Amino acid sequence: MTQTVYTFGGDAPHNDPRQRDKTVTGGKGANLAEMASIGLPVPPGFTITTEESVRYLEHGAAFSDELRAHVADALAHIERAVGKSFGDAADPMLVSVRSGAAVSMPGMMDTVLNLGLNDETVEGLARVSGDDRFAWDSYRRFVQMYSDVVLGLDHGLFEEAVEIAKEDNGYFTDTEITAENWRAIVDEFKQIVKAERGGEPFPQDVHEQLWGAIGAVFASWDTERAKIYRRLNSIPHDMGTAVNVQAMVFGNMGDTSATGVAFTRDPSTGERSYYGEWLVNAQGEDVVAGIRTPQYLTKARREAAGAEKPSMEEAMPAAYEELARVFDLLEKHYKDMQDIEFTVQEGKLWMLQTRTGKRTAKAALKMAVDMVDEGLIDEKTAILRVDPMALDQLLHPTLDPDAPRDELASGLPASPGAASGKIVLDADTAELWANREEDVVLVRVETSPEDIHGMHAARGILTARGGMTSHAAVVARGMGRPCVSGASAVSINLKERTLRIGKRELKEGDVITLDGATGQIMAGRVPTIEPELAGDFGVLMEWADKHRRMGVRTNAETPEDCKTARGFGAEGIGLCRTEHMFFDAGRILAVRQMILADDEAGRRKALEKLLPEQRSDFAEIFRTMHGLPCTIRLLDPPLHEFMPSRDEEFEELSASLDVDVEHLKRRAGELHEFNPMLGHRGCRLGITFPEIYEMQARAIFEAACEVTAEGGDPVVPEVMIPLVATRKELQILRKLVNDTAAQVFAEKGAEVEYLVGTMIELPRAALMAGEIAEEALFFSFGTNDLTQTALGVSRDDAGRFLSPYVDKGIYARDPFVTLDVDGVGQLVEIAAERGRATRADLKLGICGEHGGDPESIAFCEKVGLDYVSASPYRVPIARLAAAQAALRSR
Amino acid sequence: MTQTVYTFGGDAPHNDPRQRDKTVTGGKGANLAEMASIGLPVPPGFTITTEESVRYLEHGAAFSDELRAHVADALAHIERAVGKSFGDAADPMLVSVRSGAAVSMPGMMDTVLNLGLNDETVEGLARVSGDDRFAWDSYRRFVQMYSDVVLGLDHGLFEEAVEIAKEDNGYFTDTEITAENWRAIVDEFKQIVKAERGGEPFPQDVHEQLWGAIGAVFASWDTERAKIYRRLNSIPHDMGTAVNVQAMVFGNMGDTSATGVAFTRDPSTGERSYYGEWLVNAQGEDVVAGIRTPQYLTKARREAAGAEKPSMEEAMPAAYEELARVFDLLEKHYKDMQDIEFTVQEGKLWMLQTRTGKRTAKAALKMAVDMVDEGLIDEKTAILRVDPMALDQLLHPTLDPDAPRDELASGLPASPGAASGKIVLDADTAELWANREEDVVLVRVETSPEDIHGMHAARGILTARGGMTSHAAVVARGMGRPCVSGASAVSINLKERTLRIGKRELKEGDVITLDGATGQIMAGRVPTIEPELAGDFGVLMEWADKHRRMGVRTNAETPEDCKTARGFGAEGIGLCRTEHMFFDAGRILAVRQMILADDEAGRRKALEKLLPEQRSDFAEIFRTMHGLPCTIRLLDPPLHEFMPSRDEEFEELSASLDVDVEHLKRRAGELHEFNPMLGHRGCRLGITFPEIYEMQARAIFEAACEVTAEGGDPVVPEVMIPLVATRKELQILRKLVNDTAAQVFAEKGAEVEYLVGTMIELPRAALMAGEIAEEALFFSFGTNDLTQTALGVSRDDAGRFLSPYVDKGIYARDPFVTLDVDGVGQLVEIAAERGRATRADLKLGICGEHGGDPESIAFCEKVGLDYVSASPYRVPIARLAAAQAALRSR
Repeated sequence: MTQTVYTFGGDAPHNDPRQRDKTVTGGKGANLAEMASIGLPVPPGFTITTEESVRYLEHGAAFSDELRAHVADALAHIERAVGKSFGDAADPMLVSVRSGAAVSMPGMMDTVLNLGLNDETVEGLARVSGDDRFAWDSYRRFVQMYSDVVLGLDHGLFEEAVEIAKEDNGYFTDTEITAENWRAIVDEFKQIVKAERGGEPFPQDVHEQLWGAIGAVFASWDTERAKIYRRLNSIPHDMGTAVNVQAMVFGNMGDTSATGVAFTRDPSTGERSYYGEWLVNAQGEDVVAGIRTPQYLTKARREAAGAEKPSMEEAMPAAYEELARVFDLLEKHYKDMQDIEFTVQEGKLWMLQTRTGKRTAKAALKMAVDMVDEGLIDEKTAILRVDPMALDQLLHPTLDPDAPRDELASGLPASPGAASGKIVLDADTAELWANREEDVVLVRVETSPEDIHGMHAARGILTARGGMTSHAAVVARGMGRPCVSGASAVSINLKERTLRIGKRELKEGDVITLDGATGQIMAGRVPTIEPELAGDFGVLMEWADKHRRMGVRTNAETPEDCKTARGFGAEGIGLCRTEHMFFDAGRILAVRQMILADDEAGRRKALEKLLPEQRSDFAEIFRTMHGLPCTIRLLDPPLHEFMPSRDEEFEELSASLDVDVEHLKRRAGELHEFNPMLGHRGCRLGITFPEIYEMQARAIFEAACEVTAEGGDPVVPEVMIPLVATRKELQILRKLVNDTAAQVFAEKGAEVEYLVGTMIELPRAALMAGEIAEEALFFSFGTNDLTQTALGVSRDDAGRFLSPYVDKGIYARDPFVTLDVDGVGQLVEIAAERGRATRADLKLGICGEHGGDPESIAFCEKVGLDYVSASPYRVPIARLAAAQAALRSR
Repeated sequence: MTQTVYTFGGDAPHNDPRQRDKTVTGGKGANLAEMASIGLPVPPGFTITTEESVRYLEHGAAFSDELRAHVADALAHIERAVGKSFGDAADPMLVSVRSGAAVSMPGMMDTVLNLGLNDETVEGLARVSGDDRFAWDSYRRFVQMYSDVVLGLDHGLFEEAVEIAKEDNGYFTDTEITAENWRAIVDEFKQIVKAERGGEPFPQDVHEQLWGAIGAVFASWDTERAKIYRRLNSIPHDMGTAVNVQAMVFGNMGDTSATGVAFTRDPSTGERSYYGEWLVNAQGEDVVAGIRTPQYLTKARREAAGAEKPSMEEAMPAAYEELARVFDLLEKHYKDMQDIEFTVQEGKLWMLQTRTGKRTAKAALKMAVDMVDEGLIDEKTAILRVDPMALDQLLHPTLDPDAPRDELASGLPASPGAASGKIVLDADTAELWANREEDVVLVRVETSPEDIHGMHAARGILTARGGMTSHAAVVARGMGRPCVSGASAVSINLKERTLRIGKRELKEGDVITLDGATGQIMAGRVPTIEPELAGDFGVLMEWADKHRRMGVRTNAETPEDCKTARGFGAEGIGLCRTEHMFFDAGRILAVRQMILADDEAGRRKALEKLLPEQRSDFAEIFRTMHGLPCTIRLLDPPLHEFMPSRDEEFEELSASLDVDVEHLKRRAGELHEFNPMLGHRGCRLGITFPEIYEMQARAIFEAACEVTAEGGDPVVPEVMIPLVATRKELQILRKLVNDTAAQVFAEKGAEVEYLVGTMIELPRAALMAGEIAEEALFFSFGTNDLTQTALGVSRDDAGRFLSPYVDKGIYARDPFVTLDVDGVGQLVEIAAERGRATRADLKLGICGEHGGDPESIAFCEKVGLDYVSASPYRVPIARLAAAQAALRSR
């Protein structure tokens, strides 16, 4: 039978590879075992596997007898290691119970500390520790957390009770509360629990406590906020979470005790200096909760920030030295920057967690490049180390350092980048306004998991409270949103929908700008500058280009987009959508004239006006691309997309064409389609109105001849026929293109090389690729339409059901973002295989949105495509992803 | 090298099987060779293969040198056989040049007779025949035909010249024209030709004549009328036509000569009696041209018709006797009724053509059954002998062919059968009047799902727009209602409640008659005759059932349709579309209430009203089907199909729901979809609004329990989930159905057997069939939607390009009528294979329109489906087609 509970620390063996497999024991559990195995001080404990949580949720929240037996054995392991007994009234062993999924979900999952305390064991703890106050503080913490996490009671009730006790005693801070006060507060807490639970008292049986906590951690996987987080972060819903039960160590045993979180390098900039926060006499949750403002870890940082309270380096030099040794050891072992949690109990350091640290894109780049320099990793590892999607943060503008800034206040630089937008004071408003295409900045006292959708909708996040590792900071970095946290100069009046920042009164809707790199908050909109793509970025991209097999092109149709893409390293155009040129204000009239013409002669007359325009478009693009390949798709969308919709437009058209408005409206009505996506579009237009494609082909070849005649690099246009389902369509239209080319070449007395190929974007085309390849020199996979048709889902209409679909795990990801490899992927594979069987040198590419999605790019590598094509800002992402895919496939 | 010219007759060998393969030598050529090989008197000649005509048309109308050489050899064969030389001025050999495609296309193709005559050879012919008039008559015939067929001149010019000559000479009939007159007319003809051809004279070179005629026959394949004929008759465009060149025999050499056409049995009734027409002293085209009234072949027929002129049996007893002998010989040889052409030259019988005779459905049935009785063929051959589609004619009441018809206009023959009734201009009026026991014909510009109740209430449907696969056509065929669609001569004035059909003004309430088999629209009531389904029909169906492997079910949702289908031999329901029940006037309000509800509670309230209605629908169907399997598809179409569209409807809804009209309109607007076919429909409704499917499942199981409790045959409902693309969807919904079943069974204290399965109608579903079969006990191929998605073609919008597509040969057939075996067929095959690999006893069926199409049924047999499901009136067609497919696959 598969092992479902793994012990670690003490004398536990750590040699089962499953124990260090995150998918089995979760990230936290796997790393605790790993740390214990290399001799680091880890409090002994055990991990219940993720598989058990899945089983638990599937089986109606029931524990199996086997699980109960294994947990009893594992508990005995901890007891042996610490030499105490769980529930022992004389000298009780306490445990923490924490969740730990395979993928980190910060702030999403639940934790219970100090478990094992009850009315009897608290007395034992007091006796053994010689510290009544510590024992009763621990007990009240436990009751409070357990009631919140396991019993589901409102934590406000308990906080209120503490506040009242402080008021009654005339205290200002928690530290003034005495052991006796805490004892009374615990009584009060127990009364609250009993009242809220309809007479059921707080559980005194430590085993009942333990199983309650285990069940709560299991169940936390299925909460709404966890589901939303997973959806936003593309984490599958069927992974489950592990549970880690561990002997408690106490950072709250007086001034020789402490707790902290740290990174082995700066997660914001990537610089090689320890980075972290700590608190004396505190437990872990005090640091992240943001109730007390934490202190800096190193002296240098403290001084740089001009902070008063001593750094750990200064206050606890011995423990700090030990911690620094552990940092270096961890980096050498994991060969990556680590994000750790530690506790110092009466001078002794204990490691509670390590994991590969989240970082900004900039930091990721710098660390990857630095670690190669340091000889810690090689180039290939460096390439694999950077999340391609994170580059997105670097590819967008930052604040112009020379622009004037009307600074209102500043906070912590919690997540880099610049953001301007209208102030919104809650998550729902953020989402609402963002849906109206407005840029918004979410301003909150502090954020909680319920704010996630608003954070996602916002351009940037500003909080009045919380540190660099607060919820807002961690989540914002993960999302690539700029964030300023802990800006105490911000005070919010939710009722009036106003706020004060520093000395200035503002209201919801006023525009502010955040600089996440400095923590500055500015009034109004500050101009931005383009990103700097040299330095670490340039080095990594160079390495990526060296290791990738696939080419990277861009989807672009304006000279500006082409220039941007070239700057980002695009090696050609994979998709130039000619219809975008038709919407130009100066041309739409001629386009409409063409559509409304009664016959071919009428259409040809209108097309004559469009020819010079299209020719100059193409010439400009060819000039910009300097001889790189350019795939130009002939007209694709249904004609009625070009028709006017508003009355004024109809009247204008009527006047300029001298055609009756009613006639125009009737004609527009005739063009209406029930399912335009499956209607008279793509090559069907070319078959029924060959003169349109003829004009476009002519414009392409005339432009190519023109640019070549200018002495530019020789242009090789790749003429792409869309929406082909049969060989015959392509045969007819290829002949039309070839005939037009021959005609143009004869007229110009010059020739250019060119290719004719097709998009594979219908299931039938994929299946018939063997035949179609007889007529095509290249295939470009139009995975947007291929997804729409294979899945029978209109992207425009999917909104109403796609998000519940992803929530229910029907599709692991939005199939329009990440290719549905199982279904649509089969069609791509079939087409590639059959196409190449017919024509060995068939050029294969992808030009759907998926061409800029790393996971989809990995699939393209697997299938052996020649290139991917992405939107200009995604080109560097595609370059890196292609390199990663190539490295992984070797 | 492949042989391109085959000789026949004389001493030619006939042993190459390609010579008797119609696809190579065409029907006429193959049968001439066949007749010659069994010793029948066939004038010697040769056939140029169909392949050569395809090559000729593809290569810009040029003859190859090889072809010229082969034709010269073949011409020498004819010369040897008849002992004359082509172009010999002394004793010229004349030839006929006729087209002959693999499939008969009567009247579509061209023929030239008497070729080889010129100013010199005509004199030789006159001398040798001793008949000046015959020679000059033949020459003028030749000039006339050649000028028409090869030179493309207007034949009216020549007819006019003959008329003028007759007038000038005071003649009334052609027979009065003398040799001298004909000579003068030939001169006149040659003047006309020269004038019309801009000075170019009529070709005198007999070889030039021959090649001109061959080229004209080749080219005749590509004329507009030929293309239209092929499209209407589903004949592929790439077959080409053969050319038959044959020594002339003359039926116009006086009173011992004659020509005629005949059938070996009566092609109208199937009776076993010779049937035909002949003319003394005439050439073949005289009989078909209708210039002279032909005479009966047999004495019995002449007497029955009360005709004066003698029958051939009486006038030429010896030749008749020989002909009768040939008839019997041909029937024994071909084992089928033959349609022949013959000529008697100076008392000697020559066979010019034989082919399997076309026949009415009634005749086909009778002949097939008779021939089995006669021992001529066996049952299997009889089954294969009858075209399943022809049965359609027999299954509907037809117009009395002898009744007078006052034709108003015509449209497309969209659904067969005859209907008379009062014109109604909307569905509600149709239902209202029909409830008053009036026969009505629904006349609409086009129909939509809201018209269903009106279509059902009507005797027949007439639309001004839409093709053979429009909504009206498809629904009407499904319902077995006669329908004429796309009648552009119909224009409706809804405000005045009047309409114009052709030149006549009519108003609502006026009676018209539709002939769905021809597309004719008649004023007033035309009497009809009821179909005869016993007798030969019953016998043949019984044989078919004995030999078929696949089951035949029906697509039906009303008890009436179920009864009809049962009467036609349906063995269950393959598709019961529950949404059709939603359109019922008594329910649509509750349906709309459900759609407009703001939350689940609101939807449940509305669904409660629908539950008893659906339950009684299902109970009625189960009772009607007497324990046969019933596949019930849960709600499929997008919800907005149920929304009102007209202002009155909104107002009515507003009043009855007490909801603001504007709110309703806004809500309807929100439900709008860009591509509803790919939108929020099918199982997506079940996933997002599980309560809808829950109600439907409950209705099914409650009804099943109810009917079983009544002591009826035990009902086995097959619950079908539509539009599944993933295993997970089916898993979720199957569980919902199973849970509902368990609940109902617990409530009722009774159980029924049932299956849960799915439609395979999306390409992804076909590809993932292996996984999906884990959750499905049956698959039903929804080939309508599978065709739409695989080809990326919306059936509702295809009208604008599908017909040019079929014309250009891009699709050989309308893929919504006959399954696209190459593309969509692959998906069906993949799904069948993968589904069965997972679940060996997976039940496989088809419920798209293709389930009633014989060619598609043949494919289903090949793939090994368990059953096909067709609309009620197509059930007998499917039974026969399934038997044929089974026999052919053995």
